[in-house]
Amino acid sequence: MSVPDVAAGARPLARVHRGDLVESVHLGHVVVVGPDGAVRHAVGDPDVTVWPRSSLKPVQAVAMLGHGLDVAGADLALVCASHSGERAHLDVVRGLLAGAGLTEADLQNTPDWPLAPDAAWEWRAQGHGPASLTQNCSGKHAGMLATCRAAGWSTHDYLDPTHPLQQAVVAATVELTGAPVEHVTVDGCGAPLLSTTLVGLARAFGTVAAAARDGSAAGRVARAMATHPWHVGGTGRDVTAFMAAVPGLVAKDGADGVYAAGLPDGGAVALKVLDGSGRPRAVVLAAALALAGVDPALVAEAARTPVLGHGRPVGEVRATFGPDA
Amino acid sequence: MSVPDVAAGARPLARVHRGDLVESVHLGHVVVVGPDGAVRHAVGDPDVTVWPRSSLKPVQAVAMLGHGLDVAGADLALVCASHSGERAHLDVVRGLLAGAGLTEADLQNTPDWPLAPDAAWEWRAQGHGPASLTQNCSGKHAGMLATCRAAGWSTHDYLDPTHPLQQAVVAATVELTGAPVEHVTVDGCGAPLLSTTLVGLARAFGTVAAAARDGSAAGRVARAMATHPWHVGGTGRDVTAFMAAVPGLVAKDGADGVYAAGLPDGGAVALKVLDGSGRPRAVVLAAALALAGVDPALVAEAARTPVLGHGRPVGEVRATFGPDA
Repeated sequence: MSVPDVAAGARPLARVHRGDLVESVHLGHVVVVGPDGAVRHAVGDPDVTVWPRSSLKPVQAVAMLGHGLDVAGADLALVCASHSGERAHLDVVRGLLAGAGLTEADLQNTPDWPLAPDAAWEWRAQGHGPASLTQNCSGKHAGMLATCRAAGWSTHDYLDPTHPLQQAVVAATVELTGAPVEHVTVDGCGAPLLSTTLVGLARAFGTVAAAARDGSAAGRVARAMATHPWHVGGTGRDVTAFMAAVPGLVAKDGADGVYAAGLPDGGAVALKVLDGSGRPRAVVLAAALALAGVDPALVAEAARTPVLGHGRPVGEVRATFGPDA
Repeated sequence: MSVPDVAAGARPLARVHRGDLVESVHLGHVVVVGPDGAVRHAVGDPDVTVWPRSSLKPVQAVAMLGHGLDVAGADLALVCASHSGERAHLDVVRGLLAGAGLTEADLQNTPDWPLAPDAAWEWRAQGHGPASLTQNCSGKHAGMLATCRAAGWSTHDYLDPTHPLQQAVVAATVELTGAPVEHVTVDGCGAPLLSTTLVGLARAFGTVAAAARDGSAAGRVARAMATHPWHVGGTGRDVTAFMAAVPGLVAKDGADGVYAAGLPDGGAVALKVLDGSGRPRAVVLAAALALAGVDPALVAEAARTPVLGHGRPVGEVRATFGPDA
């Protein structure tokens, strides 16, 4: 097992224009797969090995549902979320825990402030510090704990890579991505982080999104996310705006420049920004979705990324590829 | 005048290791010049045209001193700063304005929160919103206003590119960088933003740092910055740590991945991270300084950039180049 080079084959994905210069350029990899899972378009290397970070959450949720987690709607969307830590997000997480006879004290994810500045302000103004509840992965961790309760597994060691819950996540990841899990480390939140390939990640999202009309675990995840996009992200988040704009879209952002999205027809896209920046992610996702057949007008607002001087646009972030590029 | 391509010739500068994978890679350009201004080392293209952003502030300050600004010490360091908005920074800015018979109301830089989260918290807890005073460039703007007063120039239009102050900044930039200013736009703070070349930026810093023992405007800037590194950045900022660690170093960070630093012998370095990320800047600056003769042990702590999983290091950001690479 050799160590892959994430830079090999990377291509420019987006340019940052300020005034009449290109100030910065983001390289990376993009893949677009059809409903049959075959690669339709690629920029860079579709087979690149990546840490999918939080973009794997819908897959983790499929594993949880397969082992007894019994939630739906906004509750399930929160399990798949990197939430902004707004008050209604926290209420749902508390409800998930209470439903399993658990409390915030059972969460083992890394304490952090809410992602949204206003939510962080409110949390601190209430006298709180960084907490597991407010960290953006708390819905996933609540779901993991609730799954352990349903399956009769121990909860104190649910983050151990050898725990049956984490082994179930590996199995679901291999099944949905069609790729082996060759590397494991620790994610920011403390959960095991599994490697996959970019095309494998896209295929998983295509499978999940296409299942929306059936009763499978994947279908339950797809319906929850597509129906409750605010719970998957939050106010002003582009992941929320994309799902609100495209009916049936199942999209998830991940740290260090990862994004994946599946369409109801089973087509899907995944991208990795080589430098890990979130800045070009929305623009690049919109360009990839256009290649997958989404009307660009639907996602133009979700993708808009102006570059400001004195508070006014003096440039913008533009994709290097797409149907019109 | 053709539009240059900032991506042309860019090379990997730093890799982000998480677990046993390279998660992300930052490309860009680095130049190291000797005391004579000649290029000693380069990674990527030393002649690349960049928006220097806030790294040009020491040069802007030289222009101000040349037209009557009469400040020194921490006051002058603040004029060269992208400060974190901590209380003592704000006090210095208020003092600069008062010394010129002006107030916060005369500042025209874009209102913003303090850069430092704790300072932003304190500012908001006092009932304030985003303000020109707390925006990281307020020292520069106070210096520009004070210069206008000293020179007998109007203050209401000091941000106009045709204002004599801004024309003086262009002249100082051309003189110190040895490169023409071929592009102009608006910086985030509202001041005119002048293009330069990476090697020109390095030469300007070498000239400024080498002047520290003379009475010139450049020498005054060098002494102020090297003696008051906290005022140039703030608590926990790497620009502050580098200057505190290396006697006589004159360093300045800039938005979108720019960094420049000059040494007392006139040697200097400048770098542009192609993707604009601040993440690899300290690591890349340390590697460049090592090529310029700085003992790596001096700056190891300033450059340390761990990658965390569950709050503990699971990787790090490492430069791809340097004396040992």
